[in-house]
Amino acid sequence: MSDLIQPKVLKGFRDFLPADEIERALLMERLVKVFRDYGFVPIDTPALEYSEILLRKSGGETEKQVFRFSDNGGRDVAMRFDLTVPLARFVAEHKSEIYFPFKRYHLGKVWRGEKPQAGRYREFLQCDFDTLGSDSAAVDFEILRLIKKALNELGVSNFKIHVSHRGIFNRFLKSLNLSEDSEEVLRIVDKLAKIGEDEVLKLLTDISSEESAKKILAYISGVSKELKSEDFEKTLSHLENLAGGPDEDTKRMRDIYALVKAVGIEDSIVFDPSITRGLDYYTGVVFETFLNDLPSIGSVCSGGRYDNLTALYMKECITGVGASIGLDRLLAALELLGHQKTKASFTDLLIFSLPEDDLVLSYKIVNFFEAEKINAEVYPEPKKMNHQYTYAEKKDIRWGLFLDKDSCVEEFDKAPQRFKIKLKDMTNRTEDETPLSEAVKKIRASKN
Amino acid sequence: MSDLIQPKVLKGFRDFLPADEIERALLMERLVKVFRDYGFVPIDTPALEYSEILLRKSGGETEKQVFRFSDNGGRDVAMRFDLTVPLARFVAEHKSEIYFPFKRYHLGKVWRGEKPQAGRYREFLQCDFDTLGSDSAAVDFEILRLIKKALNELGVSNFKIHVSHRGIFNRFLKSLNLSEDSEEVLRIVDKLAKIGEDEVLKLLTDISSEESAKKILAYISGVSKELKSEDFEKTLSHLENLAGGPDEDTKRMRDIYALVKAVGIEDSIVFDPSITRGLDYYTGVVFETFLNDLPSIGSVCSGGRYDNLTALYMKECITGVGASIGLDRLLAALELLGHQKTKASFTDLLIFSLPEDDLVLSYKIVNFFEAEKINAEVYPEPKKMNHQYTYAEKKDIRWGLFLDKDSCVEEFDKAPQRFKIKLKDMTNRTEDETPLSEAVKKIRASKN
Repeated sequence: MSDLIQPKVLKGFRDFLPADEIERALLMERLVKVFRDYGFVPIDTPALEYSEILLRKSGGETEKQVFRFSDNGGRDVAMRFDLTVPLARFVAEHKSEIYFPFKRYHLGKVWRGEKPQAGRYREFLQCDFDTLGSDSAAVDFEILRLIKKALNELGVSNFKIHVSHRGIFNRFLKSLNLSEDSEEVLRIVDKLAKIGEDEVLKLLTDISSEESAKKILAYISGVSKELKSEDFEKTLSHLENLAGGPDEDTKRMRDIYALVKAVGIEDSIVFDPSITRGLDYYTGVVFETFLNDLPSIGSVCSGGRYDNLTALYMKECITGVGASIGLDRLLAALELLGHQKTKASFTDLLIFSLPEDDLVLSYKIVNFFEAEKINAEVYPEPKKMNHQYTYAEKKDIRWGLFLDKDSCVEEFDKAPQRFKIKLKDMTNRTEDETPLSEAVKKIRASKN
Repeated sequence: MSDLIQPKVLKGFRDFLPADEIERALLMERLVKVFRDYGFVPIDTPALEYSEILLRKSGGETEKQVFRFSDNGGRDVAMRFDLTVPLARFVAEHKSEIYFPFKRYHLGKVWRGEKPQAGRYREFLQCDFDTLGSDSAAVDFEILRLIKKALNELGVSNFKIHVSHRGIFNRFLKSLNLSEDSEEVLRIVDKLAKIGEDEVLKLLTDISSEESAKKILAYISGVSKELKSEDFEKTLSHLENLAGGPDEDTKRMRDIYALVKAVGIEDSIVFDPSITRGLDYYTGVVFETFLNDLPSIGSVCSGGRYDNLTALYMKECITGVGASIGLDRLLAALELLGHQKTKASFTDLLIFSLPEDDLVLSYKIVNFFEAEKINAEVYPEPKKMNHQYTYAEKKDIRWGLFLDKDSCVEEFDKAPQRFKIKLKDMTNRTEDETPLSEAVKKIRASKN
C-alpha cells in the first residue's frame, strides 16, 4: 500500500506511553483516595455541552480558545474547557437529586485551543474539588486541610498554601475610594511577581494617586518581606487595621485559622495579602500553593470561595468554596524534584521461553504465582534471549524464571511448592536453582 | 436575573451522580487491577484526532456517526469513536519507543452521534485490551484467561466465553466455492440469534444453493443444540472435518485449548461455530461473552485476532489479538443481577454539630479517626438535626457522633483514647456513650 497516512497527533495534543501513563494514573489514584477519605464524592459530566451553557459568561478570550462546532443535528456545541461551568450546570440541573453541603471531586479532561507552548497543552487533565451550599468557616478550612493532605500523599511536604481574603482587600480599596477600580487594581496587583514593585506602583499611580498606590503596595506587602507561617495572625491584624477594623471577613479568617491550628497544619499556611486571584469570580477566602523548592513553576493548587455559582441557570444562590489541582504542572514538578519513581509495569516475574519448554507448564506456574499474589508473565514465544531480556528490561521486571530442561508437568502437579526452577535476579543477572516456595519468598522480600 | 439558561445536557449524553459514578469507578478500578496483575500496561491517546486518521478506513455508517469539525486552525478533526483506530495510529507513531509483545489496556471515553436509545449513548466508556506483535497461541489464550479473571473479579462467575475461528470457517466456505461471498455469508450468519434458522437458511439459499445453505447451517450449529464446555474438542474435530481436515488453524485452536485446560478455566469456555464477529477485521480466533443469567443483553466482552492492525500507517505488519469490554452494558447487567452494592460515599462517621459545639474539638476528633484509618466528616454548621440526619442518610454513613454538652478541648488533648462521646448507630438509631477507643473498635468491626 503506497498511500500511507502519516500517523501523528494534532499539535498541542499528546499520547501517553505506558511509563508516563502509569505515573499519571498512580498520582490520580492517590489523590482520589484522599478525596474519598475526606468525605468528597465523584461526579462526571459530558465532554460536550451546549455552547450557550459553556460560553455565556465567558469573555472573548475563552470563546476564541474553545473547540466549538455544529453537530450532525445542527446543535451549537462545545468541548468543555474547565470543570467549573459544568459543575454549575450540573448542580442547577440536579439540585433536587443532590444534598448539601455537596462535597464533590471531579477528575476529567478539558480542552482549550490555546497556543501550544512549554507545559501548555490543548488537552489536559483537570482535578477540581468543591464544597457547595455552606458558607461556614469549617468548609473553607476543610479545603485547606485537603490540599495539605493531598500534597503530602503525593510525597510533597515542602510547600506553603498562600491564603488571603478578597472581602478584606475590597473593603480596604473602598476606604481609598477605589471600589469602582477594584477590577483594574486586582489585575495590576496580580502581576506583582512578574513585573516587580516599581512597575506595579507606577501602574497603580496611573489609575489612582501616588498616595493610594503606596498604600495598596503596603497592604499587599504585609508585615514582612519574607512570608512566615507564624506571622499569620499578625498579618491579619495589620490588614484589619488598614481596612478599617474588625468585621465578618476578618472574623472568618480567625475562625479558619483556629481550625488550622486545631489539626496542626499551620506550618503549611501563610497569610499572603498579595494573593488576589486576578479577575476570577471569588468573593471570600482565596489561596494559591507554591512548592518551596520550585516556586518558579507557579501555583500547583489554587482556589477560593465564591458566592453564587449557579447564577446563570437558576434564581437560588449556591455558595461554595473549592480548588483546582494542576495535575500536569504537579507531575512535571515531581519529576524535577526527583520525587516520583517511574514504573514501567506491574509485573514481578517473567517466565522465559526456550524452544524445548512446555507452555502448559509455564502457565501453570503463572497460576501458582497468582495464588501467591505475585504477578507473573510468560514470554509467549521461544525468541532469541536478547529479545526476551530486552522485554524484561523495558517493563522493568525484577525477576526472571527458566524452566529446567528435564522438568515436566507431572512433577509440578505432584508438588508445586517443591518444584525446582532457575530464578534469575535481573538487577545483577545472577541465577539460582530453587524450589518455587523459595522463589516466592525471595520475590516477596524484594517487593517490600 | 430573568434571562436564565436552561441547565441541560445534550441528547444522548449523561451526567453521573455520585452513587453511579462511585459504582463505575470501583468497577474500573477492579478491572485495572486485573490488567496490571496480568502484565498489561496503560496508554492514553487524545480525544481529538485528524479526521483523515480516524476515518480513512471506515465506511459511510461510521462517518455519519462521528463528531467531526474544523478547528480554529482550519484542521479537519474528529472525536475518537473507538480505541482501536487510535491504537493503530499510536503503534505506528511510537513503534521505536514501545516493545513487543506489547500488552496494553486503555480505558477512555469515545463519542458516536448515533440515535440515542435504551442503553445507547453518544458518549460512553470503552475498555480495550490487546496484545500486539505476537502470533502465538499463548497470547490468544492470555486474552481468554484475562476475560475469565476480570469477570470473576467483578463478582460474575456464571458466564461462558463463546470461541470460534474465522480461518476454519473461511476454509469451509472455500470448500463450498463461497469464498467470494464470505462477507455476505458472515453478515447473514451473524443474524442467527435475531432472525432464526429458517430465515438464515432462506437468505443463504438466495446467495448460494439450498445444499450449501444447509451445510453452512450445519456448520454453525456445531455438534449439539445446547452448547457445552465439554464438547469443545468434539466440536473442533467436527468442524475440522467439514473444513477439509487438520491445518494450522485447527492446530491453533488445540494449542489454545491445551492452555485453557492447564489453568483450569475450561468450564467458562465453549466452542460456538456461530460466532463470526460479523464484518469485523478479524482473521483468527474470535469470541463473545454471554452471562448465563442474562443472555438477552448480548455479549459483554468480544474480540479476536487480526493480522494487520497498522496497514493504513506503515508497511510493516503488526498482528495482534484483543478484546473490548462493554462497561456500560456490564454495569447495567450487574445491577439487574443484584451483584453490585451501591455506595453513596466512603465516609464511615459523621460528627453532628449542635449550636454549643466547638468545631475545633470536632476537627481534632476527625484527626484522631484519620490516624485510625476511619473516615470521619464534620457537619459544618449547627443546622436542624433533620438536615444533618438526611445528610448522613444520603451519603450512606453508618455512624454518627455527638459531643457531650460539657466536653472541652483540654480534656480531649489530655487523653484522646478515653475521651467520651455519644456514638449513634444510624442503621437502628441507637446511641451509646463510649470512649473514642471503643468507638474505633465498633466502627472497625462494622467495616469488615
